[in-house]
Amino acid sequence: MEDAGLLEELLTQFVALPGFKLLVHGGGRMATTIGDLMGIKSIYIEGRRVTDAETLKVVTMVYGGLVNKNVVAKLQSKGTNALGLTGADMNIIEAHKRVVKDVDYGFAGDVDKVNADLLSGLIKQGVVPVLAPLTHDGAGGLLNTNADTIAAEVAKGLCKYFDVSLVYCFEKAGVLENENDEASVIPLITKSTYLEHKKQGVITGGMIPKLDNAFMSIEAGVKEVIIKQASALNQAPGTTIR
Amino acid sequence: MEDAGLLEELLTQFVALPGFKLLVHGGGRMATTIGDLMGIKSIYIEGRRVTDAETLKVVTMVYGGLVNKNVVAKLQSKGTNALGLTGADMNIIEAHKRVVKDVDYGFAGDVDKVNADLLSGLIKQGVVPVLAPLTHDGAGGLLNTNADTIAAEVAKGLCKYFDVSLVYCFEKAGVLENENDEASVIPLITKSTYLEHKKQGVITGGMIPKLDNAFMSIEAGVKEVIIKQASALNQAPGTTIR
Repeated sequence: MEDAGLLEELLTQFVALPGFKLLVHGGGRMATTIGDLMGIKSIYIEGRRVTDAETLKVVTMVYGGLVNKNVVAKLQSKGTNALGLTGADMNIIEAHKRVVKDVDYGFAGDVDKVNADLLSGLIKQGVVPVLAPLTHDGAGGLLNTNADTIAAEVAKGLCKYFDVSLVYCFEKAGVLENENDEASVIPLITKSTYLEHKKQGVITGGMIPKLDNAFMSIEAGVKEVIIKQASALNQAPGTTIR
Repeated sequence: MEDAGLLEELLTQFVALPGFKLLVHGGGRMATTIGDLMGIKSIYIEGRRVTDAETLKVVTMVYGGLVNKNVVAKLQSKGTNALGLTGADMNIIEAHKRVVKDVDYGFAGDVDKVNADLLSGLIKQGVVPVLAPLTHDGAGGLLNTNADTIAAEVAKGLCKYFDVSLVYCFEKAGVLENENDEASVIPLITKSTYLEHKKQGVITGGMIPKLDNAFMSIEAGVKEVIIKQASALNQAPGTTIR
């Protein structure tokens, strides 16, 4: 979201995707930049942002305003009828403030429920929702919520209405057999090959929670999960998890 | 929008209003505050903000994000199914960058067209749109747009689908016969009494463009325009223009 050229490329490819679709975006690096300008320091614990009251303002402005509305305007200019949303809008995503165990992440949201009824109606009318990684607590408070989680929860919520493919865009070409070789993309991972790959040490580290989440989505009704490069959204196949 | 107590009072009264409804908000003072924090100075000419590229980022964050999403979350907490929108969302308001005559207002939008079809469908399903004062140019650019103008244009656009009352909330109890006496509210203004009031010097200054705009809305199909105090939205009648 922070690289204008890559964003333009991604949105152009997104627009060309066939079928009904929905986009979930992040914006963490931009939130850090704007927070720095405002004198609000970003704090991370185990790679996750700690959202105090001032940081909540920053992410609400950056995710819900700056990033979301610019993506919507760009998609509109490409003939896609985009609609920017947070979880608070039409009460799409109900969440609660994360319960403090070891770490107090502040105003971080854990998702309770997705209400996809109005959302699916709009999608069927040709509207393309663009979701910012924000939810609400039902008591008037907004909550900073992980974009990957939003994508998974909304994908699951939409299974009642559509055959859903959940596509994660990141910087690599897919799940790699050799992390230094972009050509070593594993085309297909199933539950049994996943266990095999883990046993052989081919899939390790940060990829394990990603794939665990992918299989949870599939068990909840998502047809397939695809992990691929953002710049090749509509080109290279990446890794499909079924 | 900047006074939390008044906002809470206004939203509580708004929720109690009967019938289908839609809210248009501003947020200029908050944009100035955030801009100051970011080292982006607000510049006004004849009471209107000059929107350069950096200021456009600020108003996109503040109007589209901070103010809009907080109002949506607060309305959701009061049982109102709010949906925050800018003119770019679902292409509701098409606009163009204001043509420079004497003054270059930068990325200020003048409205060309309101597309209220999807919007009216959502309203009929019980959704309450909350509009931020931002539009788009159809070429991927967002535009800062006067909230009173947005309210008038959307009211006119919705006349095809509903009987529309357009209510302007401000700090005074209504159009006053004596500007120092809050009890001197003129309850009803028609085209003929308006001309009379102007001739007698009862209505002067900044109230004249407001009322001219009100009569233009009525000529375009709006049933009535009401000017009243924000804190008395659901209580005192204010001034009705028919």
